[in-house]
Amino acid sequence: MGRVTVRRPVLHIKAGEPRRRPDTLAAEEPLEIRVASRPLSVTMRTPGSDVELAHGFLLTEGVITGRDDVAAARFCDSPGPDGRNTYNVLDIALAPGVEPPDPSVERNFYTTSSCGVCGKAALDSVRLRTRHSPAEDPLRLRADVLSELPGKLRAAQRVFDSTGGLHAAGLFDADGSLLAVREDVGRHNAVDKILGWALMEGRTPLTGGVLMVSGRASFELVQKAAMAGVPMLAAVSAPSSLAVDLAEEQGMTLVGFLRGQSMNVYTGSQRVVTEIS
Amino acid sequence: MGRVTVRRPVLHIKAGEPRRRPDTLAAEEPLEIRVASRPLSVTMRTPGSDVELAHGFLLTEGVITGRDDVAAARFCDSPGPDGRNTYNVLDIALAPGVEPPDPSVERNFYTTSSCGVCGKAALDSVRLRTRHSPAEDPLRLRADVLSELPGKLRAAQRVFDSTGGLHAAGLFDADGSLLAVREDVGRHNAVDKILGWALMEGRTPLTGGVLMVSGRASFELVQKAAMAGVPMLAAVSAPSSLAVDLAEEQGMTLVGFLRGQSMNVYTGSQRVVTEIS
Repeated sequence: MGRVTVRRPVLHIKAGEPRRRPDTLAAEEPLEIRVASRPLSVTMRTPGSDVELAHGFLLTEGVITGRDDVAAARFCDSPGPDGRNTYNVLDIALAPGVEPPDPSVERNFYTTSSCGVCGKAALDSVRLRTRHSPAEDPLRLRADVLSELPGKLRAAQRVFDSTGGLHAAGLFDADGSLLAVREDVGRHNAVDKILGWALMEGRTPLTGGVLMVSGRASFELVQKAAMAGVPMLAAVSAPSSLAVDLAEEQGMTLVGFLRGQSMNVYTGSQRVVTEIS
Repeated sequence: MGRVTVRRPVLHIKAGEPRRRPDTLAAEEPLEIRVASRPLSVTMRTPGSDVELAHGFLLTEGVITGRDDVAAARFCDSPGPDGRNTYNVLDIALAPGVEPPDPSVERNFYTTSSCGVCGKAALDSVRLRTRHSPAEDPLRLRADVLSELPGKLRAAQRVFDSTGGLHAAGLFDADGSLLAVREDVGRHNAVDKILGWALMEGRTPLTGGVLMVSGRASFELVQKAAMAGVPMLAAVSAPSSLAVDLAEEQGMTLVGFLRGQSMNVYTGSQRVVTEIS
């Protein structure tokens, strides 16, 4: 965990007054994920939980569905300028019978769609790849329990976030108890890390669970939640139009602007219990 | 601009009281960028300024360096579910003599580096590809002028951001005057749009300019600024460690946490003029 943050000198200016002082930054380094020694993806991430990140990435890309689909995860020898291993190249060996991903650019999912490049095609591609039915998930959560999640996420995050530069993703159960939290400079990485953790713990599909993110809810994040079988995604900030469309089609509950006692429920509102509902 | 935002019904809950009301969401749709009819990249973006986005993407990927490098930009026929063109596929024809990009996964820049996958290799790759020297840029800006930039960006953004879900990127000149602003659900897209605008206006390399972003400063955003020859990047939120490393190596000024009368100058502080300096 030593590389999660980095200390740097900074010139702090306040009302025109400059002052040198140390500052703590969120660490960012490249991680190359390989499958069977073949490069698949390079992501800029905060070091730590890399094996989980790779598992979550392969889960949400539809390559694996459970921990038994991975035979081994191994850091390759990848020396940095000082000759020491950077631990920035991770090779995943899939279990026998698990189809490796196609790393070509042409694999992009729109080519399998009957229509062109559009929101509908993006939704179709997720439906074709996911094996879960969040629509049938009986999860119910009281609105006041939901309101407590950002504070719980923040409290867990605060332990090692002194940088102001890390996105957080947390998993909660139906009682609103925090199961785990992961942080990263990239919000898709934070989500891959937490979903990879769940997969490695044998908790996927995440029926009855809530995935909470510290920022916005994009199409990509709803897609990742759907691939992990999560019935509810809650975000501190705004969702995009396509995020809402996908959550609706998947029968997921999407909550945005979850702040204080206030929230917007965009889809699947039957899972959010209020005094009147 | 009709597709920049989308109206949706939402269940707003405040202190346990549910109320149905309409909500405005930031639009998100896929854009496929092709070069000479060959698919290069699919990005989830907010529709609008797509030609600029493609120019900015090709600029910051090192494919083009000026507007004369592009012969034509054309929306392909890409029908949606209703049979109408979605305007989500954009084909760029490069001028004669301009080398097309290699869309293979193996093109990833670490393979050209003498060492492995590490921060140093990422910095090296930018140095090998950029043709500008921000280090020599004589730009100087008073700290109180810098402090006004977030407000100016916000004011320009407010015109069409009613969603709370859009990232903004703005270009300012050395007097702190706003030249242009672009918004997107993805912050890298907002930056590509504004840099593409500058390229199409014949303003690149952006000597003497300030790029301001509404969120955090990652390695990727500093890289894009460097590829466009921008000497100063200012961000409302935190930079990452590798963003600071790259700004330092490129001789750029990187300002973070630019809020009110306060800011952190991480690199190139000679360009920020205070009463004492």
